[in-house]
Amino acid sequence: MEFKISAQDGSARLGELSFTRGKVTTPVFLPVATRGAVRCLSSENLIELGYEMVLANAYHLSMRPGTKVISAAGGLHSFMNWQRPILTDSGGFQIFSLEDTKIDDTGAVFRSIYDGSWHQITPEEVVRIQEDLGVDIIMPLDQPVAYPVSESLATEALVRTTTWAKRCKTSHRKEAQALFGIVQGSTYPALRKRSAEEIINLDFPGYSLGGFCLGEPKQEMNELVSYTAQLLPAEKPRYLMGIGTPLEIISAVGAGIDIFDCTFPTHIARNGSGLTGRGKIIIRNSTYREDSGPLDPDCACFVCRKYQRGYLRHLLNTKELTVLYLITYHNLYFMQNLMRRIQAAIGKGKFLEFQKEFGEKWSSGL
Amino acid sequence: MEFKISAQDGSARLGELSFTRGKVTTPVFLPVATRGAVRCLSSENLIELGYEMVLANAYHLSMRPGTKVISAAGGLHSFMNWQRPILTDSGGFQIFSLEDTKIDDTGAVFRSIYDGSWHQITPEEVVRIQEDLGVDIIMPLDQPVAYPVSESLATEALVRTTTWAKRCKTSHRKEAQALFGIVQGSTYPALRKRSAEEIINLDFPGYSLGGFCLGEPKQEMNELVSYTAQLLPAEKPRYLMGIGTPLEIISAVGAGIDIFDCTFPTHIARNGSGLTGRGKIIIRNSTYREDSGPLDPDCACFVCRKYQRGYLRHLLNTKELTVLYLITYHNLYFMQNLMRRIQAAIGKGKFLEFQKEFGEKWSSGL
Repeated sequence: MEFKISAQDGSARLGELSFTRGKVTTPVFLPVATRGAVRCLSSENLIELGYEMVLANAYHLSMRPGTKVISAAGGLHSFMNWQRPILTDSGGFQIFSLEDTKIDDTGAVFRSIYDGSWHQITPEEVVRIQEDLGVDIIMPLDQPVAYPVSESLATEALVRTTTWAKRCKTSHRKEAQALFGIVQGSTYPALRKRSAEEIINLDFPGYSLGGFCLGEPKQEMNELVSYTAQLLPAEKPRYLMGIGTPLEIISAVGAGIDIFDCTFPTHIARNGSGLTGRGKIIIRNSTYREDSGPLDPDCACFVCRKYQRGYLRHLLNTKELTVLYLITYHNLYFMQNLMRRIQAAIGKGKFLEFQKEFGEKWSSGL
Repeated sequence: MEFKISAQDGSARLGELSFTRGKVTTPVFLPVATRGAVRCLSSENLIELGYEMVLANAYHLSMRPGTKVISAAGGLHSFMNWQRPILTDSGGFQIFSLEDTKIDDTGAVFRSIYDGSWHQITPEEVVRIQEDLGVDIIMPLDQPVAYPVSESLATEALVRTTTWAKRCKTSHRKEAQALFGIVQGSTYPALRKRSAEEIINLDFPGYSLGGFCLGEPKQEMNELVSYTAQLLPAEKPRYLMGIGTPLEIISAVGAGIDIFDCTFPTHIARNGSGLTGRGKIIIRNSTYREDSGPLDPDCACFVCRKYQRGYLRHLLNTKELTVLYLITYHNLYFMQNLMRRIQAAIGKGKFLEFQKEFGEKWSSGL
């Protein structure tokens, strides 16, 4: 993996990640394909939408269908019919969220959400799984903490995250797959600084910011993302894990973040909410019963060019699966268009103007 | 509506239905869009697949969202973003299948499956609803009967069906919309003959065969479809309602049927079954866990060119909605391809050869 920054505007960066499987313009938003498919969409849809990279979840894929099946299929790219780059999350966050998970320095013991069987996960195993999947960017096992958390527990998780990062790096064999380091430290600036120093010291080709958006106030999150990003080496890509809404992404781009992923646009689509320049539209509302206008009047996607709000609402009300496809498609079109506009704004040195303009329209309401 | 037969091979006919909204080559299979959407697919998908006409259900659409909403949207074609011809079923079959439905000569009183409210349906109302929807082919209200049924009950339903057909014709105002007549008579050849004579006497631009595939033996159905079809005027299109599987369709084409509709290909897709030249494939079976081959090795659709059986199985097992889209797409590709092959065979005077060849491969198994 190579990373080149072609323009900078304040702390916001326009760049390009290069892999053997293709190039990815940053700042980039990765649609989430937890189990190897973006909810409701085909790979062909994602190509049409212009996505250059997706995220999958190593833990989920290792449980179902298992790395043996995926290896037999020729690796995750062949398995999911996606020849462009893939980043996998380790799934540590999902594992540590399970009620029965027991954690110690070795790793974690947890019960499968699929069949209740017990499994052990270690830093070495997490790397092996992702190497077997054959993905392009690998996440190490880290220990996230809930919010709020005491400084002493956050410190303990930080120390373990560093130890595990070291073990992941030692066991990492396939250099073509880029293993990132993850910075933890909860909402304590001093811990974020310590974690960043320890992880940078291990020298990774890219850095992830973990443990954000867990319930802390937005303002605090934005400030701490900005603070943490500036601790990281300028020439390496920065990935803000699991984030976020359009406003959160724009704010984090302004802080120097390059990579994002979030289930937000696909998740709200399944609940019948569409993204527009003026914020979320809840299509299910009865006010749209006879509305013949498009989901988002400013959007050029086929859904907005061809389908009426009243029809989308009817399909939601009658539980027709077609509508989940249509709204998901639009929402991912919206997100990709947002990223293209962000990239263009940085290239022209007008990122702050874009942020202001987008924010004003977004909060003006429908 | 115009109907022209361009070739005949035995009783099988190659023809063309012409509407102001476009031409439809027959024999034709109509995908079912009960509530205004073919399950999991967009109109764009149906166009890609080459479909020229779809079926919707007047009863379901009149309950949700109601003809007022659809009229406000500019009619059903605009509402569902489908500018090609639409045939609507009256929904009588669905209404008479409801437990609380009460029927007399006036019409029927029934409870909405959506909110339990009571509604009355009459022949005149059924025509008005479909005229309001603005569809291209309209079905009258008829009285289907269950199988098996006594000859006296079948006769009673037949008489009522004729009376209602007359009332439908009298109340039908919009000539651009073709109102068909429906032949009933259960499994009694004499009743089929009587119904055909009475309905033909009313002079409709096309005729539907109702009350088939309700549990009667396949052989009996095929023979009675053939018998009934030959009673109908040769120059008018014939529509076998709600049928069927590939073998049933081929058999009925051989009997002179021109129009088909069935939920079969979309319904089995949602249960994880794909159509192949060698019969149904149940992708969920564990035998396909590590199968890297395509769903149907003989198929040229994008799903079969790009996706592996093992992947489709994994998505079914993890309840990923994408797979319902992929299998539905393939199944409707299979059906459209089947109809194109039927049309070509009739054109070349080789329909019986095609029927034999298809049947042998289909029953040879996977």
